[in-house]
Amino acid sequence: MDLALDEAKKAQERKEVPIGCIIVNNVTGDVIARGSNEREETQNAIKHAEIIAIEKACSKIGSWRLEHTSLFVTLEPCPMCAGAIINSRIEGVYYGAKDPKAGSVGSINNLLTETSYNHQPIEIISEIKAEDSAKLLQNFFREIRRKK
Amino acid sequence: MDLALDEAKKAQERKEVPIGCIIVNNVTGDVIARGSNEREETQNAIKHAEIIAIEKACSKIGSWRLEHTSLFVTLEPCPMCAGAIINSRIEGVYYGAKDPKAGSVGSINNLLTETSYNHQPIEIISEIKAEDSAKLLQNFFREIRRKK
Repeated sequence: MDLALDEAKKAQERKEVPIGCIIVNNVTGDVIARGSNEREETQNAIKHAEIIAIEKACSKIGSWRLEHTSLFVTLEPCPMCAGAIINSRIEGVYYGAKDPKAGSVGSINNLLTETSYNHQPIEIISEIKAEDSAKLLQNFFREIRRKK
Repeated sequence: MDLALDEAKKAQERKEVPIGCIIVNNVTGDVIARGSNEREETQNAIKHAEIIAIEKACSKIGSWRLEHTSLFVTLEPCPMCAGAIINSRIEGVYYGAKDPKAGSVGSINNLLTETSYNHQPIEIISEIKAEDSAKLLQNFFREIRRKK
């Protein structure tokens, strides 16, 4: 999660909402892909940290099936990113702060435990280093309000 | 929906599951973006027809906010694509066949009417030319089984 937090800080440096993600190979422990939020600079609604990391991981592995991988993200995934986790068959999901506004892995609903979909991660753990992630976000939005 | 079906046929020609999507400007009626499923050829779990069309529309408009637009897709959106519709603030959603395996706009759940998220489309209409869309999919999978 420290590496995902590093990615979140990179997003912040680019004046993006600080959210970061990494994807790890469960067998070797290697980091396969990293991503940080790029929505504002790209003006692309899809460019969340998780999507960027999943696309990079697919490219690196050469397959849309990210079996034997885990995703670490600093904020609870939104429905789009939870759906991307289902679609790419990621097996472990670990996230930081909860997101009452869009969180779809425990807050508003939990798409990752919905057995009607054709994949559920084996392990889901929430609120890992949640305070560090939340503090990054709080400071970012405080700074924006201060500048207004 | 005919234009979305044309996109689905393009996917089929590339041996992809035939799903197609277009995004239209609600004011002018112009088609802003087109997309067809590219998951297999790109080996990228994100490359659904809707995501491709949304990314193109963001690029064309120069904004991640696709206000005053409508999306037409031949198959009911999965959770990832429903989430992308929420994230990009699309106002109208029109789809063809229902998808009992992943459909998240009426079949398994309906993410687009979940008022806890910060956006809901103004209009959602399902099963438009649903038989044409379903027939394309059925023929595609029949052909795959025949070849095995």
